[in-house]
Amino acid sequence: MNAPVPPQLPPDEVFDWLDAEAEKRAGAGLTRKLRPRPAVDHELDLAGNDYLGLARDKRVAGAAAAAALRWGAGATGSRTGSGSLELHTELEHELARFCGAQAALVFSSGFTANLGAITALSGADAAIVTDKHLHPALIEGCRLSRADVAAVAHATPSAIKHALATRRKPRALVVTDAVFSADGDLAALGELAGACRAHGAALLVNDALGFGVLGEGGRGAVHAAGLAGAPDVVTTVTLANSLGAQGGAVLGPRRVIRHLAESARSFLFDTALAPGSAAAALAALGVLRAEPALAAKAIDAAGNIAGHLKAAGFRVELPEAAVVSVRVPSPEVAVSWAEACAEQGVRVGCLRPPSVPDGVCRLRITARADLTESDVDKAVKVLSATAPHGATS
Amino acid sequence: MNAPVPPQLPPDEVFDWLDAEAEKRAGAGLTRKLRPRPAVDHELDLAGNDYLGLARDKRVAGAAAAAALRWGAGATGSRTGSGSLELHTELEHELARFCGAQAALVFSSGFTANLGAITALSGADAAIVTDKHLHPALIEGCRLSRADVAAVAHATPSAIKHALATRRKPRALVVTDAVFSADGDLAALGELAGACRAHGAALLVNDALGFGVLGEGGRGAVHAAGLAGAPDVVTTVTLANSLGAQGGAVLGPRRVIRHLAESARSFLFDTALAPGSAAAALAALGVLRAEPALAAKAIDAAGNIAGHLKAAGFRVELPEAAVVSVRVPSPEVAVSWAEACAEQGVRVGCLRPPSVPDGVCRLRITARADLTESDVDKAVKVLSATAPHGATS
Repeated sequence: MNAPVPPQLPPDEVFDWLDAEAEKRAGAGLTRKLRPRPAVDHELDLAGNDYLGLARDKRVAGAAAAAALRWGAGATGSRTGSGSLELHTELEHELARFCGAQAALVFSSGFTANLGAITALSGADAAIVTDKHLHPALIEGCRLSRADVAAVAHATPSAIKHALATRRKPRALVVTDAVFSADGDLAALGELAGACRAHGAALLVNDALGFGVLGEGGRGAVHAAGLAGAPDVVTTVTLANSLGAQGGAVLGPRRVIRHLAESARSFLFDTALAPGSAAAALAALGVLRAEPALAAKAIDAAGNIAGHLKAAGFRVELPEAAVVSVRVPSPEVAVSWAEACAEQGVRVGCLRPPSVPDGVCRLRITARADLTESDVDKAVKVLSATAPHGATS
Repeated sequence: MNAPVPPQLPPDEVFDWLDAEAEKRAGAGLTRKLRPRPAVDHELDLAGNDYLGLARDKRVAGAAAAAALRWGAGATGSRTGSGSLELHTELEHELARFCGAQAALVFSSGFTANLGAITALSGADAAIVTDKHLHPALIEGCRLSRADVAAVAHATPSAIKHALATRRKPRALVVTDAVFSADGDLAALGELAGACRAHGAALLVNDALGFGVLGEGGRGAVHAAGLAGAPDVVTTVTLANSLGAQGGAVLGPRRVIRHLAESARSFLFDTALAPGSAAAALAALGVLRAEPALAAKAIDAAGNIAGHLKAAGFRVELPEAAVVSVRVPSPEVAVSWAEACAEQGVRVGCLRPPSVPDGVCRLRITARADLTESDVDKAVKVLSATAPHGATS
């Protein structure tokens, strides 16, 4: 059989298909516009992930600045080349110690940390079992893993167990978020760990939304579940949320960390984390150690916002971590509501496909430890005043 | 048919397979150890990718420090959330202007930039045609793409043409490095662009090793090939090599950049680049504009090192960019030679599988624009004094 003759396109038309894609997005209300912000603005920012308000803390930003001057702006190479700094080692040591893990490995982002952990701990001989609400960054890791991947119904440990029991591969890895990003709900980590143990599987937990806010002094959801030092549990965290910096890390048994440092492709083939970001994360960890109440403040602020929104008639669940989700009937309504809030000085997150697992759009309101009562009042007032028809009951 | 019964492993043994993997690596001479360096050391560093010596330049490191203090240590969110800063927009504008592209998009690393560009510009309806020597970071993108992937013989444009002509998918993307990382050789970009145009394909060029050192004032290999503003060519660069910072960027037609900003998953689901790194890259770009001779200095230093090594009897090719490769018979020899150099104060890179495309190990010596004649002498002297039996002819 002859191959089909490939199309002869003038160079100008090679990317015409992108215009068609853009039209499809526009038709579905899924156009995304970047809205760059200035260094100083007067909006109330409830769209970021700086749960502890540390990104602009002078101790944290100051550590970033000092490290850039002392170590240079960049790490100059991969971690296996000239890019491994004693600063990375110190950060890894402190992260592991804080979270109660044997060891840690720092990546340039939470995205690459998850990609590296999922791919290096699975492979073609493995089954991955996961929850349909898994964060999209982790779905990328599953896609790249070459493993058999089963994504089961959200928050249904029995479905995880069934998939583990009926898998076709000898090894298995259960991959879950500790706090799911769409609705801010908690995974049943204890039950999942039990299921893994009953079926010879390892458990990988993305604690991006729990680290810094949940558990004793912000040690995270894995620590809170008593799984931090477990020999069969691996945790990923981001240094960009609670620690206000950039980067990601994997925490776990020493042999897992060694394996990742020698074989995770998103670790080996990437430039090491910049000194300023590593130093900022380290300083933020120090702040969190010194002020363990910060974690609870973020949770309290989220509960406060959710309580007020509930009282105002919105259909929200009481949050398990620092994020509050409000379901919205359509992407167009989500965008126009978020824009109306921004016009009144409150920036909220707007979740639309492919950022949501179930096609349901949400506004996301992120609490911070440093929100004042008047910030919370303002947020609730603006959300109420701009609410679309049918948003309140 | 019943599913096989999954193994019942105690938690302690779930990761036993990693020990077996580590033993396999050790047996093949492929153990990797991280060697963290202090902020100040007295080694001659020829293992990094800081081709222009800008990572520690006061203007660059100073800009990183100032930005951390002004903007905060982190961007606090994804680019579509609260993480887009006017600083990113300015950097994107300047990168596009410098390289002669319509537009640019900044990612948190070169790794995620390549992942995003490859996956968002291909997909299940596309064929990807690439060179077997492609950088491993880009191979990850191809694996993740869901496209039909054909990796053809190195430096063989006729094989690229054949694969394009016989593809089974309507769309096609040719993916190549501008400078291949294993040997530092140049791709035939003009010929590849011609092949793409003859077959209705787009061309994606990773210019990580060319940007900052090749072309007019360091505008890169794509600019040098006259392809910078082409409607069917997309370029990826890293901000971590010549610009001494962290991060990556994609440059290309405006509609490509818009498409990536709206649909590249490694862009949407990742925290934005830290302010310090963005500001450092911007400052480095300013230095390169002000001192266009820097680019040629890096190339000259590489040629100088290669010339001396050739004169000393080593089998090296004259380099096309800032990296010089010396082939080594085995991974054990590569490691012991690099270690012997380090003991004498010269840090060189050591390429072993999976970092090499053909199983052949190399030492990699990276030149910098700021190397002195005595640095070059020292490098050649140490490499010669420590050379394993059979390394020179």
